[in-house]
Amino acid sequence: MQKFDVKEHPHTRQNLLTGDWVLVSPHRTKRPWQGKVETLPDDNRPSYDEKCYLCPGNTRADGSVNPDYKDSFVFTNDFSALLADTPEGTYDVGGLLKAKSEAGICRVISFSPDHSLTLPRLTVPAIEKVIDLWKKEFADLASNPAIKYIQIFENKGEIMGCSNPHPHGQIWSQGSLPLEIAKETTQQKNWFTEKGRSLLSDYIAVELQEKERIVLEKEHFVALVPFWAVWPYETMIVSKRHVQTIVQFTDAEKTAFAEILKKLTAKYDNLFEISFPYSAGMHQAPVNDGDHAEWHWHMHFFPPLLRSATVKKFMVGYEMLANPQRDVTPEWAAERLRSMSEVHYKEQ
Amino acid sequence: MQKFDVKEHPHTRQNLLTGDWVLVSPHRTKRPWQGKVETLPDDNRPSYDEKCYLCPGNTRADGSVNPDYKDSFVFTNDFSALLADTPEGTYDVGGLLKAKSEAGICRVISFSPDHSLTLPRLTVPAIEKVIDLWKKEFADLASNPAIKYIQIFENKGEIMGCSNPHPHGQIWSQGSLPLEIAKETTQQKNWFTEKGRSLLSDYIAVELQEKERIVLEKEHFVALVPFWAVWPYETMIVSKRHVQTIVQFTDAEKTAFAEILKKLTAKYDNLFEISFPYSAGMHQAPVNDGDHAEWHWHMHFFPPLLRSATVKKFMVGYEMLANPQRDVTPEWAAERLRSMSEVHYKEQ
Ligand SMILES: O=P(O)(O)O[C@H]1O[C@H](CO)[C@@H](O)[C@H](O)[C@H]1O
Ligand SMILES: O=P(O)(O)O[C@H]1O[C@H](CO)[C@@H](O)[C@H](O)[C@H]1O
Repeated sequence: MQKFDVKEHPHTRQNLLTGDWVLVSPHRTKRPWQGKVETLPDDNRPSYDEKCYLCPGNTRADGSVNPDYKDSFVFTNDFSALLADTPEGTYDVGGLLKAKSEAGICRVISFSPDHSLTLPRLTVPAIEKVIDLWKKEFADLASNPAIKYIQIFENKGEIMGCSNPHPHGQIWSQGSLPLEIAKETTQQKNWFTEKGRSLLSDYIAVELQEKERIVLEKEHFVALVPFWAVWPYETMIVSKRHVQTIVQFTDAEKTAFAEILKKLTAKYDNLFEISFPYSAGMHQAPVNDGDHAEWHWHMHFFPPLLRSATVKKFMVGYEMLANPQRDVTPEWAAERLRSMSEVHYKEQ
Repeated sequence: MQKFDVKEHPHTRQNLLTGDWVLVSPHRTKRPWQGKVETLPDDNRPSYDEKCYLCPGNTRADGSVNPDYKDSFVFTNDFSALLADTPEGTYDVGGLLKAKSEAGICRVISFSPDHSLTLPRLTVPAIEKVIDLWKKEFADLASNPAIKYIQIFENKGEIMGCSNPHPHGQIWSQGSLPLEIAKETTQQKNWFTEKGRSLLSDYIAVELQEKERIVLEKEHFVALVPFWAVWPYETMIVSKRHVQTIVQFTDAEKTAFAEILKKLTAKYDNLFEISFPYSAGMHQAPVNDGDHAEWHWHMHFFPPLLRSATVKKFMVGYEMLANPQRDVTPEWAAERLRSMSEVHYKEQ
């Protein structure tokens, strides 16, 4: 019998950050695709849209009027999933029906007054201003003792359930630790307690040696396809320095983060020469929850596309009922992303 | 301050079967939808399609010719994610890059020779023949000592990544326990060890008392919206008798299962008067893995639609990075499904 080869044979890989395993089927993209083909949203937008609730000067659902902002702009979500004034309480029927109330604050951040732009099309100084706002919002929400976790994220593209193409992200903050954060806390704590170094410091050291999953290596940050990536072109940005949250970034790190964000998202757009859809978000240490020295800041990108601009990976059936599964190797995806220009195809 | 009310205030509910929690935001459907609207696939198909790889007499990708079958038909997936002849092996770089080989067998089951049908449009005797084949395949795969878990499922509708509308399902079987099964095993074992009864026996007893999440109660089976449902119209069929696998179903249970499958899927189709998309699958005890007396057979339905035939729930952003979240209460969804006729709108 042949020798086991992770590039060739079906196998599972462990996600270091969650402890879960993902099924990898390297040979599987050979199957023909007769399924759903997505329609591409129109990518030629005006700089100002009078019907957009994020454009400067427009009126939102609650009747308030957006200021005539010049950089970025933040406000409390008019349709928040979490509300600050939720009464505390629990519910329990025989240990079988269990619920507890959950309070929180949801914000929306417009990245630019220009309706036509996206993150990779913003200038580095403009992205730095978005990072300033993320830092400020994080610090502000963390100063509320009822908040234990702050999720900063962006849904980009209508295929990702984004209901408005204006460049924007969200922040959902809440009083308990969400599932993924609880898992990542446990895994990072176990490693840190045993080794005295952060899990991601040791992980990126190995990746920088192996090189084959690295997409971009810059001063202060690395972008790579994690060994355990689930989505075909999933990536992660990791800070080289072991910091817990974005608030700790120095000015030099802020600039470097803006640069790698622009370059990684430009590579994504260059892949199929479209505005590349994804959900992306930072994972950071819990707040108001004691010491979390084990935590190492990072940012995940989960893009849905698989074969082309219009054929995505469906996480259905087996994936929903049993286990996440991917059809191409992370190494193959990293190689493709690495070969893309760092300069956006519309800026070349 | 008001009293905490699970029908009104944001809260989390515990999934008894996995131990995980889901965020419920009862008030959230009030937000307007300006996002992606799905296109509906054509639902008027011929009974025979010469290009379909599942229709009787047609040639498949590997060159083999489908028999002229009259009921259902099973074969090994021509593009299997898992393969029987995978060499054994592990991979480990410093405890940081960890992988192990995974062998398995993937099958495809055509539910009917008629290309135009779907599960709710099959007759009860025809569904019974599909159940017979599921039983036979389960027993056959379980007789292979290399197989530890058998996932029977169906992806229905192109929005669920189903690449062929011919009524069919799949079986993926493998040598280790997938994530969801490992979690459900732990939760059921803990309960069974402590109480001496299966977790789902106790759970459906409470649900049959409370009634508000029950969709269908029949002899031998209950269909309900679980207290912890994530997808808007998620449901679960549970056998009243505590059995581990489909192989243990009596003839009476087989008929009752066929009936409740037809009625539940007819209700789904009646909801928006379309062929309702979903991923569905049975969860059953692991095989060749010692005693699993704690396991209680059940079947999950995960449908993606939220507001209408064309607007789905997007599990993105917060959900991918932090925690599953739903926008309507399970009680509201159960009420809507309960009010639908058990007879398919095309058969009325
Ligand atoms: O095997 P199919 O139907 O071609 O593929 C579909 O179901 C599989 C199992 O749920 C998924 O892995 C695929 O992403 C999906 O497109
Ligand atoms: O808040 P939005 O952009 O309207 O909504 C989108 O993002 C949310 C958070 O990831 C999801 O819960 C919604 O399903 C999605 O459509």
